[in-house]
Amino acid sequence: MKLGIIGSRGHIGYVFESIGEADDWELSAFSTGCDDAPEQLEGMAKKAGFSPEYFADWRTMLEQGKLDMVAVDGPFDLHAQMAAFALERNIPVFCEKPIALNLADLERVKAAQRHSTAKILSMVGLRYEGAFQHALNLVRAGKIGKVKQIFAQKSYKLGDRPDFYRHRATFGGTIPWVGSHALDWIMAFSGSSFASVYATQNREDNHGHGDLEMSCHCIFTMRNQVQALASIDYLRPMNAPTHGDDRVRVAGTAGVLEVRSGRILLIDAEGEREIAVPPPERKIFSDFARSVAEGVDCWVSTEETFELTRACLLARDAADNGTICRF
Amino acid sequence: MKLGIIGSRGHIGYVFESIGEADDWELSAFSTGCDDAPEQLEGMAKKAGFSPEYFADWRTMLEQGKLDMVAVDGPFDLHAQMAAFALERNIPVFCEKPIALNLADLERVKAAQRHSTAKILSMVGLRYEGAFQHALNLVRAGKIGKVKQIFAQKSYKLGDRPDFYRHRATFGGTIPWVGSHALDWIMAFSGSSFASVYATQNREDNHGHGDLEMSCHCIFTMRNQVQALASIDYLRPMNAPTHGDDRVRVAGTAGVLEVRSGRILLIDAEGEREIAVPPPERKIFSDFARSVAEGVDCWVSTEETFELTRACLLARDAADNGTICRF
Repeated sequence: MKLGIIGSRGHIGYVFESIGEADDWELSAFSTGCDDAPEQLEGMAKKAGFSPEYFADWRTMLEQGKLDMVAVDGPFDLHAQMAAFALERNIPVFCEKPIALNLADLERVKAAQRHSTAKILSMVGLRYEGAFQHALNLVRAGKIGKVKQIFAQKSYKLGDRPDFYRHRATFGGTIPWVGSHALDWIMAFSGSSFASVYATQNREDNHGHGDLEMSCHCIFTMRNQVQALASIDYLRPMNAPTHGDDRVRVAGTAGVLEVRSGRILLIDAEGEREIAVPPPERKIFSDFARSVAEGVDCWVSTEETFELTRACLLARDAADNGTICRF
Repeated sequence: MKLGIIGSRGHIGYVFESIGEADDWELSAFSTGCDDAPEQLEGMAKKAGFSPEYFADWRTMLEQGKLDMVAVDGPFDLHAQMAAFALERNIPVFCEKPIALNLADLERVKAAQRHSTAKILSMVGLRYEGAFQHALNLVRAGKIGKVKQIFAQKSYKLGDRPDFYRHRATFGGTIPWVGSHALDWIMAFSGSSFASVYATQNREDNHGHGDLEMSCHCIFTMRNQVQALASIDYLRPMNAPTHGDDRVRVAGTAGVLEVRSGRILLIDAEGEREIAVPPPERKIFSDFARSVAEGVDCWVSTEETFELTRACLLARDAADNGTICRF
């Protein structure tokens, strides 16, 4: 099975993390999808034991590369165009999130997928992270009863970011970029699509990062009446021990489960205790690669990818306009 | 200095916790303010070394008791009436929160206070709790720079509650009753009054508790642009180690501070560490009692008491009506 890659602006590392575990996939072609130099991707490929053909033009690669899948990680504002182009040629897409920076582009990808035999997965890698993956299995197995309330936190270090982070048109906003993980947890742990959102955001004190929002808050009601909050920020001090402080707290009718610092804490009828985190059952790229190669389900569906993207964009709209958005 | 008490439905324990440390205060009179039997309050008074005069009628007590302060902890729906009656007679009021269950009643108390020489404090005892008190001192001293974002959590066990909790008219709602603490932290840590709120609430799965909401979420923007979230619930399992899981996380331009499980965790330029919690400098009742006796400021002002009550009621309105409320 032949994989092509376009770009390495975001989480393309997911591919290299598990391509060795996926049956018969080889990285056969790559492009940067823009003016980025090819050396970085070339180096990553070589390190993983691949010598892919380089294409200056990503369209040529998709048209002539005879690919069984493409991983899209080019400029954020081109995700939708690249994904739609691939889907129109029935090439499955492993796509950096968010897959579109506006609703019109999302509709374009959805339309392409509707007429395609191929599926698309956005890189919600943190749902696959060991503690979150096991926590989700526990909640789905009913360990805390009926889910009622969710709080999700993404807190990142800002550092000094490339110029494209400083412009809404090329970055997309902090809710879609950082918040997508929190919203994916909310969707997964609630077991529901979204019904409404209100949100706030603030770009002051962003150390010269232009449009970039330093902190965002979202409040959701899900279709199944689960209530959810997301707290998203770039305020994590540079001397904090890790880049991110990822958390989720899920309260149900029979218990409260938390993921914090990679650990799972559970309170239920038996009291409070830590749950050991087993090695992850699935990794995001190999899970999708297997679903493509064997025609089986992936842990995250195409429908969830679309729903998550829409939620990110409507939450951003709510914050931009100070209004409640209904789905 | 003579103190009277009306009722023991809520946190009247704050009085007995520190009346011994307040200069020259004696509990000289009490009433239950309703059909509640007087034995409970009588027992608490005796245990603290007082033999207060019992009044069947709280109005008579306020008119004839020559009181220097009254602690109001009768039926929730009578807080406002009792507080206004006392203020109209220039008697300072240490009042269970929320001091009013609707905006009209709040206006009545405010009007009474405007024409009074007396002040009113609502029992936001958790602001005085050791870890929160010290954390607030640290934040006010600038340890995390400019405050940007706050998350406050109140999670309680439900148990089996008296009948008055089951009716909105006599309980007031979970946002005002439980959430008032979270909103007080938000007001205190942000150093600002409130600008807008949206909120959600859910009363399903409340184990026969009628109107009582099991979970609530609020999203605030403060006048100084600080963003804040409150997560409020009665979902804490009965076998959890403590009744409440009180938390606040405050993210600023120079650090992130958290209070959790009575501990303070700080991340700043020096990295991540726990801050030792010193014994509280102030206790809520003795702080107010001293401010009344000596004419000095209390840590929480009358204006903050009014602002907090209004915020609770507008957040509840937002949740009731599904609308954004502007202050």
